[in-house]
Amino acid sequence: MKKLINNPEFVVEEMLEGVVKAHPKYVKKLDGFNVLVRANSPIQGKVALVSGGGSGHEPSHGGFVGKGMLDGAVAGAVFTSPTPDQVFEAVKAVNGGAGVLLVVKNYTGDIMNFEMAAEMAAMEDIQVASVVVNDDVAVENSTWTTGRRGIAGTVFVHKIAGAAAEKGKNLDEVKAVAEKVIENVRSMGMSLTPCTVPAAGKPSFELAENEMEMGLGIHGEPGTFKDVIKPADEIAEHLVEKILADIDYSGSEVAVMINGLGGTPLMELYIMNRKVSNLLEEKGIKVYKTLVGNYMTSLEMAGGSVSILKLDDELKELLDATADTPAFVQI
Amino acid sequence: MKKLINNPEFVVEEMLEGVVKAHPKYVKKLDGFNVLVRANSPIQGKVALVSGGGSGHEPSHGGFVGKGMLDGAVAGAVFTSPTPDQVFEAVKAVNGGAGVLLVVKNYTGDIMNFEMAAEMAAMEDIQVASVVVNDDVAVENSTWTTGRRGIAGTVFVHKIAGAAAEKGKNLDEVKAVAEKVIENVRSMGMSLTPCTVPAAGKPSFELAENEMEMGLGIHGEPGTFKDVIKPADEIAEHLVEKILADIDYSGSEVAVMINGLGGTPLMELYIMNRKVSNLLEEKGIKVYKTLVGNYMTSLEMAGGSVSILKLDDELKELLDATADTPAFVQI
Repeated sequence: MKKLINNPEFVVEEMLEGVVKAHPKYVKKLDGFNVLVRANSPIQGKVALVSGGGSGHEPSHGGFVGKGMLDGAVAGAVFTSPTPDQVFEAVKAVNGGAGVLLVVKNYTGDIMNFEMAAEMAAMEDIQVASVVVNDDVAVENSTWTTGRRGIAGTVFVHKIAGAAAEKGKNLDEVKAVAEKVIENVRSMGMSLTPCTVPAAGKPSFELAENEMEMGLGIHGEPGTFKDVIKPADEIAEHLVEKILADIDYSGSEVAVMINGLGGTPLMELYIMNRKVSNLLEEKGIKVYKTLVGNYMTSLEMAGGSVSILKLDDELKELLDATADTPAFVQI
Repeated sequence: MKKLINNPEFVVEEMLEGVVKAHPKYVKKLDGFNVLVRANSPIQGKVALVSGGGSGHEPSHGGFVGKGMLDGAVAGAVFTSPTPDQVFEAVKAVNGGAGVLLVVKNYTGDIMNFEMAAEMAAMEDIQVASVVVNDDVAVENSTWTTGRRGIAGTVFVHKIAGAAAEKGKNLDEVKAVAEKVIENVRSMGMSLTPCTVPAAGKPSFELAENEMEMGLGIHGEPGTFKDVIKPADEIAEHLVEKILADIDYSGSEVAVMINGLGGTPLMELYIMNRKVSNLLEEKGIKVYKTLVGNYMTSLEMAGGSVSILKLDDELKELLDATADTPAFVQI
């Protein structure tokens, strides 16, 4: 296992210490919990957003804690759902009296633990609502999911619902816009290599030297098929086709995210974007905005995902709003 | 070779197309040349900054073309210096009458080709000045360098000299502040894995499964020694020690960059930052600002570098200035 780490048991704690050392203006860590919240939390009168999940997807989700996006991010062990009490602590720390929206990716453990936290919060009279992101068109059900998985499209939910909260929308309105994003975003990924969970010490699955897996999940869950590695253009074509088959994007404007899984050079993501962009143009779909980079990773996995979000005027305005977080800044 | 590419011969062209498709508000490509310039180039009356080098170091340098940083970036073939005519085209395209500063990393080919371009520009009465970045303390001379190599510290030159140019400083003043950064920044890197140049199809060197190389260059040039992989804290300690031995940082405020080489999870970079930050604190060196991420990469290489820049009030103000580029945005 080739990693820049110390004891595999403490990777999450040490990472969070490193994040706080790097970005004290943005985030603080809750004592005794692997939870990052905005340095100025709680913000009175603003709806707060909390997301999170297993670690290993950095910069998701702690990197998106800051103005215009999240208020809190809960970091479970690597690829492991955070516990209900962690989520509950995050909710308490960010609640400014206007309620808290939980943005949950569709994995059975996450759903269960965020739901329990919501119940604990309700008992303390904190108003909590939840949305579940399920943007991955690769598989109907998967190892750890009933229904579609939640992957990189989640970052669009953080950005857009975060902007709505920042503008002073109430909890119902912020939840409604988050749901609008979820209805209109689809993603699919693929992988060239597996990754190694530090505590396990070896890759969770294998791919031959000439092999890739289409539709692979961000925890290494099986995808739709293995194949010999194809040119980037063919891969892009397959991913875009699957996404476009799922909802009707015709004649729309869209936001595109070409997301790297952690071990993919930016060069390759831009080569993917070239083809994705050309394909959408050919189909009369107008690209309004494009994000290219590592937004939701899977440790050092090589590969990437494509997310396409169908926009309307409301979503465009919120997508364009200012954001200031460790991993996403927009003027 | 596991890469998301099409024909290895066209990776640079296809990447640049993908960059322009993603970021038309920021950059445009010069017809017939692998050069990116700001979408609104040339800017009359502003000193322009041009940098570049071999491709494979993305987001360096094209990702830093935009307000407050570079005006143009020249992309050579992978790990290969750009030709003088490419650099000359960039200079002509960005020259707004106030002169052009070339920011060159210290590699023999880059020095020679940027110098020839400067001569070509002088013949057309364009005022050109150059600075050479040589921040890497790992080796005295290397495969492709006389003197120290230029690595990730170069990004601090882009940021700070770019801010000076944006504030309306003249060419001499912008050059002087770039030189001040170069005098005060030192870096050192290490690698866990090699990387593969697409046209070569196989790694340029080998590291055993339990091996790392300290001081490795961003093109895979040999470093100072190979060793069995050590804990992140020991690696951080070695890098910081070598950097601090080179110039006197005592009692200063510094900016720190923990740079990933392309295949390193952000988790590991933050674990490195934790130790670097603690070490500096112990030595009474105050961290004013920290950047963590992929700033100057080496394709899919796993590993990272540490850069430490000694600050004064002028450098702090320029480092904090607004920047708006594809890969670095600061409010």
